[in-house]
Amino acid sequence: MTNSSPDVVVYEVGPRDGLQNEPESVSTADKLELIDRLTSAGMRRIEVTSFVSPKWIPQLADAGELAAAAPQHDGVAYSALVPNERGYDRFAESGRLHVAATFISASESHNRKNLNCSVAEQLGRMAPVMDRARADGIPIRSYVSTVCGCPYEGDVDLRAVVELARRLVEGGAEEISLGDTIGVGTPSQVRELVAAVGDVVPLDRVALHLHDTYGRALANVQAGYEAGVRTFDSSLCGLGGCPYAPGASGNVATEDVVSLFESQAIPTGIDLEALIDTSTWLENDVLQRTLPSRVYRAHRGRREKAASA
Amino acid sequence: MTNSSPDVVVYEVGPRDGLQNEPESVSTADKLELIDRLTSAGMRRIEVTSFVSPKWIPQLADAGELAAAAPQHDGVAYSALVPNERGYDRFAESGRLHVAATFISASESHNRKNLNCSVAEQLGRMAPVMDRARADGIPIRSYVSTVCGCPYEGDVDLRAVVELARRLVEGGAEEISLGDTIGVGTPSQVRELVAAVGDVVPLDRVALHLHDTYGRALANVQAGYEAGVRTFDSSLCGLGGCPYAPGASGNVATEDVVSLFESQAIPTGIDLEALIDTSTWLENDVLQRTLPSRVYRAHRGRREKAASA
Repeated sequence: MTNSSPDVVVYEVGPRDGLQNEPESVSTADKLELIDRLTSAGMRRIEVTSFVSPKWIPQLADAGELAAAAPQHDGVAYSALVPNERGYDRFAESGRLHVAATFISASESHNRKNLNCSVAEQLGRMAPVMDRARADGIPIRSYVSTVCGCPYEGDVDLRAVVELARRLVEGGAEEISLGDTIGVGTPSQVRELVAAVGDVVPLDRVALHLHDTYGRALANVQAGYEAGVRTFDSSLCGLGGCPYAPGASGNVATEDVVSLFESQAIPTGIDLEALIDTSTWLENDVLQRTLPSRVYRAHRGRREKAASA
Repeated sequence: MTNSSPDVVVYEVGPRDGLQNEPESVSTADKLELIDRLTSAGMRRIEVTSFVSPKWIPQLADAGELAAAAPQHDGVAYSALVPNERGYDRFAESGRLHVAATFISASESHNRKNLNCSVAEQLGRMAPVMDRARADGIPIRSYVSTVCGCPYEGDVDLRAVVELARRLVEGGAEEISLGDTIGVGTPSQVRELVAAVGDVVPLDRVALHLHDTYGRALANVQAGYEAGVRTFDSSLCGLGGCPYAPGASGNVATEDVVSLFESQAIPTGIDLEALIDTSTWLENDVLQRTLPSRVYRAHRGRREKAASA
């Protein structure tokens, strides 16, 4: 199906959101190989790293080095998370990345626990980053987390999400990625969320960033697609989340999303077999731990059976 | 939500479809405890065993013993698989089970590989079992497998599924359980399937039996529910399927289905915390292996965190 023009964008966040949660740091060379392989598989949007302080996320301490060596391909956009102006300096320095990503939480408590400030303060901190990116002609992707529920507050007011999305777009964000950080969302809730946000932001500028904590990520991807969303964040092989670790909460796996769409004749432009090859390499040669994607496991099983037949 | 009148039936098949695939046999006493615990958690329909020859499924060789000791509760129906007349003799002997289940595949090749006969021959073998059950006032549940795809043939003709469902209902089946045996179904396909079968069988007599091989079972449950199905087969904790074993293909987990519905205010009548207790017991004390349900793992993680806080 890789020849058809893609109907959906599967946005790879594994190198950033996945690897930042891996217990062991991955070498810069392996990260670059991962990015190359994902690009060769047909992925057109990849979040490659984060310019957060290495004090907070040592796994991504090589952000500058990685950005300096980032490949360049026509039609492929690499993004990086930019938490503050210092981060933006480092982002701009490389001159090789295409999209700057900001983040904020829809929940006050989650914002305070994670970012040590209120939602209003975080909006204030993001403003100069967004202004500079805009001046530099760099598109901004803004993550809004805990849109379906907060680990500290429980329910999150849908109106708070909508208001935040509206303000971020006004502030210059090209795309809003709505994150179900703790994976509690349901198809009904996703439909309601997309309809409400769609009233203030055109849906071609809205992405869904779904976690699979309760196994509902694909049901929510499907609901989001049917509600009109066309961009879905995912992480190769479910990188960063291990369903067997107590309470772990990982991104939906790229393979699972691609397979869900391709099986319904919705082209993604991505070669699933190339993703399976990449996950096999990642599992065996880089991380040396079992990765959770169900589609990956089923394909690996089929390959092993074919090889032994 | 256990006080609301259930809007859906979650049909537990773990003691039969789950345990028949476990590498080690479970003791009759543990099986009876499992059935008791599931019943206490609010499950009203449970498939407890199979009267297949112990030569084929040694894990269920104690079917007669188990049936003789089966509990009796008002409003709770226990079923058992009955492959042939000899099986029906054993089923009838105990006099303590309520529903006889038959099975057939929508695919010729799968039927031959699994049952060693054609679809037409299997219909012929089922007829005397169904006639005797009807004469005894025993309701029949008929499984139709490979409805979304066959491991040998690939695509399965939707018309073959519909025709089989029609004939089974004509032959006296009270309920048809449509099985996506290899987990390849998608939400679009499930919608199409339910609409087509719904033309010949009222949907309150149709169940969906979905496997989670490609992580799509919950998306398919949701699609089935939205298309009008109200009965969903599942297996406690995903019993019988291990997503980490190469190519394994297990039932959707009961916890995951219950949580999907309850989170959308669709009452199941089932106490999720009691299911988590039961899975904890099963995992730690009976099977001593890690079970796959994502909801179970997330709840266990939360409990462990709370206990250590």
